[in-house]
Amino acid sequence: MIKIAVLGFGTVGSGVVEVMAENKVSIAHNAAEEIEVKYILARGDHAESPFAGLVIHDFSVIESDPEIRIVVEVIGGCGAAYEYTKRALLAGKSVVTANKELVARHGQELIAIAKEKNLNYLFEASVGGGIPIIRPITQCLTANEIDEVYGILNGTTNYILTQMIQCGTSFDTALRQAQELGYAELDPTADVDGIDACRKTCILADLCFGRHVPPDEVKTQGIRGVDLADVAYARALGYKIKLLGRALRSGGDKITAYVAPHLIKNSSLLSNVDGVMNGIVVHGNAIGEAMFYGAGAGKRPTASAVVADVIDAAKHFKARKYLSWEPAAPGYVTDADEMPMRWYVRVKASLTAIGTKLGNVRFVTRRGAPPDEYAFVTDPMTHSSLHESLEDMEVLSHYRILD
Amino acid sequence: MIKIAVLGFGTVGSGVVEVMAENKVSIAHNAAEEIEVKYILARGDHAESPFAGLVIHDFSVIESDPEIRIVVEVIGGCGAAYEYTKRALLAGKSVVTANKELVARHGQELIAIAKEKNLNYLFEASVGGGIPIIRPITQCLTANEIDEVYGILNGTTNYILTQMIQCGTSFDTALRQAQELGYAELDPTADVDGIDACRKTCILADLCFGRHVPPDEVKTQGIRGVDLADVAYARALGYKIKLLGRALRSGGDKITAYVAPHLIKNSSLLSNVDGVMNGIVVHGNAIGEAMFYGAGAGKRPTASAVVADVIDAAKHFKARKYLSWEPAAPGYVTDADEMPMRWYVRVKASLTAIGTKLGNVRFVTRRGAPPDEYAFVTDPMTHSSLHESLEDMEVLSHYRILD
Repeated sequence: MIKIAVLGFGTVGSGVVEVMAENKVSIAHNAAEEIEVKYILARGDHAESPFAGLVIHDFSVIESDPEIRIVVEVIGGCGAAYEYTKRALLAGKSVVTANKELVARHGQELIAIAKEKNLNYLFEASVGGGIPIIRPITQCLTANEIDEVYGILNGTTNYILTQMIQCGTSFDTALRQAQELGYAELDPTADVDGIDACRKTCILADLCFGRHVPPDEVKTQGIRGVDLADVAYARALGYKIKLLGRALRSGGDKITAYVAPHLIKNSSLLSNVDGVMNGIVVHGNAIGEAMFYGAGAGKRPTASAVVADVIDAAKHFKARKYLSWEPAAPGYVTDADEMPMRWYVRVKASLTAIGTKLGNVRFVTRRGAPPDEYAFVTDPMTHSSLHESLEDMEVLSHYRILD
Repeated sequence: MIKIAVLGFGTVGSGVVEVMAENKVSIAHNAAEEIEVKYILARGDHAESPFAGLVIHDFSVIESDPEIRIVVEVIGGCGAAYEYTKRALLAGKSVVTANKELVARHGQELIAIAKEKNLNYLFEASVGGGIPIIRPITQCLTANEIDEVYGILNGTTNYILTQMIQCGTSFDTALRQAQELGYAELDPTADVDGIDACRKTCILADLCFGRHVPPDEVKTQGIRGVDLADVAYARALGYKIKLLGRALRSGGDKITAYVAPHLIKNSSLLSNVDGVMNGIVVHGNAIGEAMFYGAGAGKRPTASAVVADVIDAAKHFKARKYLSWEPAAPGYVTDADEMPMRWYVRVKASLTAIGTKLGNVRFVTRRGAPPDEYAFVTDPMTHSSLHESLEDMEVLSHYRILD
């Protein structure tokens, strides 16, 4: 019998405890030993929960209980979560987490501590919720040189964009719907402004390319600016607008990583990843392209990944050999704006100005457009040269095209 | 330095040797030790190959060389492959394979030998080619009770159906194209008649449900009967015809497994898996639905999975704990024809006969249909009751609908 403690009793924490109870028999079979939650660290008493008897308020009880061999951290953030994770590892307990912020910022340090103590720090749930992605990258694609990883990494923004695309709902209304359905927080900043996708992009880049990518070096643009006019032009071009996190080799030993809305082709599988679902594409020099699809958030899908990590930790009390990355030299992450791409642009300007500044572009029209609005697709160019070309025009929007 | 032997120097074997050479540095990094091919067991001399110096013809050299710790079996079939795998394991060498026929038939026995000798028998490449699917199921979805697994498991038939759907090519022409492009063998039976998909379905069912499913208990129907008329009717209904392998719980401790063409909704992600690509959907009670997509065959994608297994074997010389299944009691695999489903049916009959025998069905039309041809969708019913209802009609085709 293996005893574990769960830190945090919010959506994911309660999902973990529920799935552990519900699938107890098959989990014991898969782990080759029974696993039981001994403590739940929470602020309130959760008197209404069937697991109220397990709730405690003092982390040091867990820290000093030698029976606890695995700690699940689902508090979130980099405050208490960071402190407790360190203390748990130093106390000889493996740690499993769904905390992308903590892994993106401090993963390298925490993995190093875990290795030194010959323990595990596992975080399958930190990217793509329930979707198996960390192990596939680190155990199944090891024969490849990975060139690129990108995907729809945030369910909230994908829900909003899907509503805009499929139902013609405005951004504000779709955001409100997402909040009513519990897909978006009351303060939706982390999702809508791409911060959540940025953290996940960093973790993917860390694992795919082997060096630490700090979130604040990743240019991040969310979906607040996306307008139904852009959705309509994209449709006319045979594209959909999706928020992508993307990391790719940019020559030498350097990489580029960024988060931004993109126009992606209707014929691509990724453009059909709708609603709150996530899809992650990995490109390697042996496998070509692979995609992983599933629920990127939510109570039970996230618990699915967390509990799988608990089972893995229970089967391998010694440090797993596949999860780690090195520090990066300064300048490792190059500026995404310097990477030439085709752009979709919507401006208020004269045709003459556009012709003069941008040369041959491909124009696209939509019904009901104001007479001085033009939308077009450019040849591949860097963001700075695009910016220069658009200098004297009123730019309504401009988004990257994923070719 | 770890030395390995590769048995078989066909498409996959040469892919393995090439990828090992090309990605030598990153593979050594991922395995934490250099890995080198010492022998290639082949019939011919392959004098034209840069690896000709490694070619030998006598397996016992490999068997008796204590330096060889991992053997890659990519011979295929259940003859020499079966014998050499057993002998390699008994000689204390881990074995990695892409051989779905061998794993589907003798996997249980070979894994048992491997376990007894505290070695590994790994077969990530046996299903879905390069797509990570074996480890995701056995390591990442362990918190779930898996209800169902299904997918497009054969690239050749998916290429043929895609040509029929997208270009209006007839089955015969599309098959010839596939042969010219090297996607189909000169004798296409194993692919076109669903035998290959059947073996992969068995392996997926073995792993998802934990008990051995023998290929000859899995009803298997290929795509030879699919006509452009069916493709047209499916389109009018908003569906595509895809060959699926499928296994699901059928109540109690039993499962159903079968291979057959299905009509699947255009709005499903799987229906957008086109050409030679594969897509595998797993449904679990915590994660909900997850899908894995990529190249299901081909030299380098398959090598990607084989070499990842070699790296895994190199990192874990002791038996992995997650890969195995139990024997099944008689009657474990129930008859797929007894599972009620909606059916798409095309007949030559009178409207009266259809109405009398089948009651309310949903008719669908196509341009250029002969006057006495009718196509329709039934309510859910078993295959036997469908068969009974169609008794006096000339049945041109009938396929399952995946709802």
